[in-house]
Amino acid sequence: MQIITLTTDFGARDWFVGVMKGVILGINPRAEVLDLTHEIAPGDIRGGAFALSVACRFFPKGTLHVAVVDPGVGSDRPALAVRTADYGFVGPDNGVLSFALQGQKIRAIHRLENTQFFLKPVSRTFHGRDIFAPVAGHLSRGVPIHRFGPRQKELIRLKWPQSRTASGGRIEGEVVYLDRFGNAITNVENASLKPTVLYEVFAGRRRLCPVGAFYGSVRRGAAVAVPGSTGFLEIAVNGSSAACELGLAVGSKVSVTPV
Amino acid sequence: MQIITLTTDFGARDWFVGVMKGVILGINPRAEVLDLTHEIAPGDIRGGAFALSVACRFFPKGTLHVAVVDPGVGSDRPALAVRTADYGFVGPDNGVLSFALQGQKIRAIHRLENTQFFLKPVSRTFHGRDIFAPVAGHLSRGVPIHRFGPRQKELIRLKWPQSRTASGGRIEGEVVYLDRFGNAITNVENASLKPTVLYEVFAGRRRLCPVGAFYGSVRRGAAVAVPGSTGFLEIAVNGSSAACELGLAVGSKVSVTPV
Amino acid sequence: MQIITLTTDFGARDWFVGVMKGVILGINPRAEVLDLTHEIAPGDIRGGAFALSVACRFFPKGTLHVAVVDPGVGSDRPALAVRTADYGFVGPDNGVLSFALQGQKIRAIHRLENTQFFLKPVSRTFHGRDIFAPVAGHLSRGVPIHRFGPRQKELIRLKWPQSRTASGGRIEGEVVYLDRFGNAITNVENASLKPTVLYEVFAGRRRLCPVGAFYGSVRRGAAVAVPGSTGFLEIAVNGSSAACELGLAVGSKVSVTPV
Repeated sequence: MQIITLTTDFGARDWFVGVMKGVILGINPRAEVLDLTHEIAPGDIRGGAFALSVACRFFPKGTLHVAVVDPGVGSDRPALAVRTADYGFVGPDNGVLSFALQGQKIRAIHRLENTQFFLKPVSRTFHGRDIFAPVAGHLSRGVPIHRFGPRQKELIRLKWPQSRTASGGRIEGEVVYLDRFGNAITNVENASLKPTVLYEVFAGRRRLCPVGAFYGSVRRGAAVAVPGSTGFLEIAVNGSSAACELGLAVGSKVSVTPV
Repeated sequence: MQIITLTTDFGARDWFVGVMKGVILGINPRAEVLDLTHEIAPGDIRGGAFALSVACRFFPKGTLHVAVVDPGVGSDRPALAVRTADYGFVGPDNGVLSFALQGQKIRAIHRLENTQFFLKPVSRTFHGRDIFAPVAGHLSRGVPIHRFGPRQKELIRLKWPQSRTASGGRIEGEVVYLDRFGNAITNVENASLKPTVLYEVFAGRRRLCPVGAFYGSVRRGAAVAVPGSTGFLEIAVNGSSAACELGLAVGSKVSVTPV
Repeated sequence: MQIITLTTDFGARDWFVGVMKGVILGINPRAEVLDLTHEIAPGDIRGGAFALSVACRFFPKGTLHVAVVDPGVGSDRPALAVRTADYGFVGPDNGVLSFALQGQKIRAIHRLENTQFFLKPVSRTFHGRDIFAPVAGHLSRGVPIHRFGPRQKELIRLKWPQSRTASGGRIEGEVVYLDRFGNAITNVENASLKPTVLYEVFAGRRRLCPVGAFYGSVRRGAAVAVPGSTGFLEIAVNGSSAACELGLAVGSKVSVTPV
């Protein structure tokens, strides 16, 4: 068995994801194809990059992660296969792989140029089917990465909005992702909070909530920030949506201040 | 192969479900993980319990059913593994497993307390990943259930709103679930209707529809109640949504009356 | 391994799809069940037929395609198993299989009447679970197609809205499908456009856009028609939804005219 994960903005309405699986299994019948998510907002490279980065390490070593959020499909943007110590990655060179590769030792980056491994004819609108799926199929069967195309040194990297510690222990950050529950995941690392200190979260001068241990630390309908499962502080409303109730969006500035 | 089903309120937007599968397959590569549904409304324990209860018996014997609708995640609510004659169940002890276990002979209930089988560190927001998935992985590999923690006698049971037969053969019940088509599934058992009697469905004094054999028993746009595939009478509008057209919601009282 | 694909209007909210998989795997544990899509609009036979037709050929030979968009469930409409040179098909005889079978040599069509292969009792609302899933399980295990019921010569065929070439090389067609991105897929075949000619797309007298090579051929927010991955011309708005921005719906008439 070889696990292949798919992260796309293809949604569930159409046949796009199913067809990718058909192509992969046609090449490697022993592949186990898992959906990470297909509900990345259309063209939201940053959202796809974040989802992949917080999820990829929970898969067994040897897993091949395929990410197709690709508004530039059909243009000249390169497509890549990347090998790290633990994983393989396949996707367009537009930043969608970059958060997952942050801080990881990259062993090889190769451009996908060997058309021998593509479906033919290659459409200019659906490289998920015609390039990324067949390459993932062949790669998962053991075709060496260098056979897919020439090596390149670097890949396009999205800028990660690093949180920063200001005077008085205040940490300044922002919302980087809204999840299905309306929880607002920030870029403030859980590890940057001192366990013995009480904190509060502000949006500008507006106090949003205290930092607690879990969603149920406050009564239903009240807001609380908790150390999230992604490694980052997330702002929640117990039993409801912090995004809606507090008016938070990706990019909203927040600060975390010792009480 | 060992089949594991997942029933959650995690939705499809994020990486939550994918990560659970990665954790399970990392522990038991021979597991076959199937989605029952991930679109239970956030925190709707009752909805999750109903979905699991009407679906679980259609899986092969030996299937392990994992249900994570868990608004109390991170609190002190216990987590359970349950063994019946035919199936295993894993989930929080908040009632989400209880409808599926109704009327079934329970062989063992164990609390999940042995941290040896958890992912570490255990987050306080995502026990699906850190507790329920790894426990399901180990359980499906054959780790005996008593190794996960101490035995307990009972689990929390949601009250099932039993329908009742009143004078004149009238059956009084309520809507317990709205499905994707807008069909309103009631708690009136198909078996409680006499095959040779004609019935009508009322909401209070308002006549909703006759009881028929199938959706197409009435013209398009008309309402009909049919013996549903869950074993319960369901109210439908042919080609449309009974929930919308008739203003039905979970909890709406209905009565089924011989004509 | 035997691949079985599922195309339905069951959505992701309920347990319908999961239960079909449970039934299939209970009969054939070696089946690999893949979702094509479950988000066909409720009862939209034509949409299901189109999705299946553009997707099915990307699966390995021997794949069994099951399509359940079945507003007539429970009525007397027949159910079918169909064998072609490369694939098997299972579904109601209401046209949902017909686009996929267009132009393919059909080896056998059999009605599903042998109740030995059904789940019992057969509900009148969920043949996906009670008829189509178990038949797919048995068929994928190698039960000969003639054992499921009597042969029939033809199946119900939906009328495909053929595009036509008018005077001056103008091609008159219509929108046949809107995808998740809001791209409007037409019935104008890519192959009907001459590669050296420039074309423009009109809706009546309103000029919609030029024909280009890929979505990014125009600036963000601008409309462009591109040869789509389905083999048909599709109308897109770069970075947005053509359906919304241009007011296109299934059935909208368009013409493609040499400049």
